[in-house]
Amino acid sequence: MKKGIFITVEGVDGSGKSTQVRIIGDYLKEKGYEPVLTKDPGGTFIGDLIRNILLDAGNRGMHPLTEMLLFTASRVQLVMEVIKPALEEGKAVICDRFIDSSVAYQGFGRGMDIDAILEVNKPVTDILVPDITFFLDIPPEEAFRRKARGAADRMEREKEDFYLKVYEGYKKLSSMFPDRIKTIDASLDAEGVARQLKAWLDKILAFDKA
Amino acid sequence: MKKGIFITVEGVDGSGKSTQVRIIGDYLKEKGYEPVLTKDPGGTFIGDLIRNILLDAGNRGMHPLTEMLLFTASRVQLVMEVIKPALEEGKAVICDRFIDSSVAYQGFGRGMDIDAILEVNKPVTDILVPDITFFLDIPPEEAFRRKARGAADRMEREKEDFYLKVYEGYKKLSSMFPDRIKTIDASLDAEGVARQLKAWLDKILAFDKA
Repeated sequence: MKKGIFITVEGVDGSGKSTQVRIIGDYLKEKGYEPVLTKDPGGTFIGDLIRNILLDAGNRGMHPLTEMLLFTASRVQLVMEVIKPALEEGKAVICDRFIDSSVAYQGFGRGMDIDAILEVNKPVTDILVPDITFFLDIPPEEAFRRKARGAADRMEREKEDFYLKVYEGYKKLSSMFPDRIKTIDASLDAEGVARQLKAWLDKILAFDKA
Repeated sequence: MKKGIFITVEGVDGSGKSTQVRIIGDYLKEKGYEPVLTKDPGGTFIGDLIRNILLDAGNRGMHPLTEMLLFTASRVQLVMEVIKPALEEGKAVICDRFIDSSVAYQGFGRGMDIDAILEVNKPVTDILVPDITFFLDIPPEEAFRRKARGAADRMEREKEDFYLKVYEGYKKLSSMFPDRIKTIDASLDAEGVARQLKAWLDKILAFDKA
């Protein structure tokens, strides 16, 4: 049986994650995988209910720890209900955000203790770690300019300063885990970004065959 | 300034907690406290949204760890937004369920690792521990008989076997923390139960004055 492959896509809002998630899905389908596209938070019935609480701009005054626990609750449900079973069936799971987002946003962004975040997420990381993570590297101010913005959700209403810390957090994470996290120049157009991702995917797939 | 007092009421569903929470509130008001009646999960705007997810009988397939994280998320919000500020203002907070419920239901009931539950709840226990906890001791089968049941929520749909484990869990907790957790014979009528609670409250209040 084909081994499943777990890919996560990370970056600040407006970095083009959802477009690339779709492109990766199509590419892996070409390569013979059954792609499962999902997102964190969300991706399950219960996770979507949690996601609504997290993103509803009306939910002011949410404590950072409440927020972190809600993100983790949604993630646990996603892993147990969707990601783990799909990988066991040899599928390719492509996930828009994952634990790195918690570290970047709650840890670096909000200043929460990163070890505490990792500790709460341990039941997830004990089970699985992404085979590869693409960090779509684009400075927040450029990402914001690019983004066609409707009403901003609760997370998006954060100040620019917050997003700078998140962005720096992603860069630190990338330098801490260079084997897993690949930094992608996301200032190019979608095709230019996709070209970089596909080059990495080709390497992984070749390695899997070896 | 008067020192705040934090009281929690525990027991299986149908043990008469909500009635006793109200009676305690009235009694402490007589004694000069400003009572704050609340419940866990819930008790805040965000907590009530989380509570809805937890209790909605349609949310089948919720992973035990997701459940535990949601309970904790609601609890953190309740502590930070309601309980801690009220205690700092010298009020008497009476809470229908608290961390002991997580240990009894998720730990003893579902067989989750109790240390893991306590670890996730550590940011709460680091800040506060109830001054006194009343365990309303009534066997689940009697509690069920007593309860006028509408549509059962997600937790209440559990099998009788589950509630027996929860009940045994409460008894173990009471024997582990006899100074904090007072076992109350809840097979009596509301007045008989209240009489026992008031006797304990009188002791605490006398101790506070000393």
